[in-house]
Amino acid sequence: MAELRLRLADFASARDWGRYHTPKNLVAALSVEASELLEIFQWLTPEQSSRVMEDAATAHRVEDEVADVLAYLLQFCEVLGIDPLTALAAKIERNETRFPVPDRTDSRLRHSSE
Amino acid sequence: MAELRLRLADFASARDWGRYHTPKNLVAALSVEASELLEIFQWLTPEQSSRVMEDAATAHRVEDEVADVLAYLLQFCEVLGIDPLTALAAKIERNETRFPVPDRTDSRLRHSSE
Amino acid sequence: MAELRLRLADFASARDWGRYHTPKNLVAALSVEASELLEIFQWLTPEQSSRVMEDAATAHRVEDEVADVLAYLLQFCEVLGIDPLTALAAKIERNETRFPVPDRTDSRLRHSSE
Amino acid sequence: MAELRLRLADFASARDWGRYHTPKNLVAALSVEASELLEIFQWLTPEQSSRVMEDAATAHRVEDEVADVLAYLLQFCEVLGIDPLTALAAKIERNETRFPVPDRTDSRLRHSSE
Repeated sequence: MAELRLRLADFASARDWGRYHTPKNLVAALSVEASELLEIFQWLTPEQSSRVMEDAATAHRVEDEVADVLAYLLQFCEVLGIDPLTALAAKIERNETRFPVPDRTDSRLRHSSE
Repeated sequence: MAELRLRLADFASARDWGRYHTPKNLVAALSVEASELLEIFQWLTPEQSSRVMEDAATAHRVEDEVADVLAYLLQFCEVLGIDPLTALAAKIERNETRFPVPDRTDSRLRHSSE
Repeated sequence: MAELRLRLADFASARDWGRYHTPKNLVAALSVEASELLEIFQWLTPEQSSRVMEDAATAHRVEDEVADVLAYLLQFCEVLGIDPLTALAAKIERNETRFPVPDRTDSRLRHSSE
Repeated sequence: MAELRLRLADFASARDWGRYHTPKNLVAALSVEASELLEIFQWLTPEQSSRVMEDAATAHRVEDEVADVLAYLLQFCEVLGIDPLTALAAKIERNETRFPVPDRTDSRLRHSSE
């Protein structure tokens, strides 16, 4: 991922796109790309949505939009000096405390003793 | 990143959230999180948007939303069997062909010879 | 609707919010509000999504987000001098040509003659 | 607006699109269209964003996306039985209480007495 971040930064600077790459513009672009990914699924049933990769053209479109979302997320992180993997690891730890795994053994015991 | 994907998958399955995690629902959640990140920037000037990390509370909020976007992107890729880094590498290669670096030396020469 | 546009304009100018209301900021806010509406539905099945108005608290939340989306849409139109109803009428006319109603009588006749 | 809601409902039912028009699908489409409107502005400076209507092609694109956003908002309201203008009027009233107009005379007096 570090290598891809570097390639994206080189790509933008070689084309002199840096002045467009404010955090505000990059996050707008990120949200636009996430919506383009959503667009592929908007009229599908939940079941159809699970089978999008079976059609080669749709699969390619999905992968292409995933790449765009990740590209803008990495560029956004780059200009603000954020490490997205560190941010995610910290979030998962907070969530493990916030949403504890329901203790099924216990709840089953409680039910049987009622 | 592979390790974080695994932890996210374990986290969801331990809480029995798998049935909510259709590709359609995950991409809707991804797009909602990208908008929550955008919300932090919506009234800022371009200059203010470049300084969001100077305020500790805002910096934390930005990192938290980045984590959410990445979490849903990875979970979406997980359920569809997509490797996001491979997808991004392929996209960068296509873009390097699609948007060639403007040849500045050449264009300067052309201008001077006119 | 004209009256509501006027009230929204008065509301913003009384609070000196005009300088934040660039078209770019208003469209970002519009898209953020549309996502907040989507957030209410993101984990629901299609069937559950059809019953959201049965719960008073959720119904209120849905109406509130609908109001936010419409408010930003009208303010965006206001600053750019767009009449949204005229734009919609023109679009419907174009779509009636673009997506003609399938001629069912004809197709039924064709089927019966096969 | 009531007339446009009716035309939209007729348009969808003539094409047998009703089964796609769950509230969840319509709100996803609304959010996708709001993002397509945002896409027009994503790389513009605030000043450029105020001048988008000066170029005929861009103006047409903006009006077209405004029509799409309004169309999906009205169809969403239609299937859930929401009156968007009533919802907006109620919201404006709540906001007038929530964000009172700053009393400038008073604040000026206070400043001068310090």
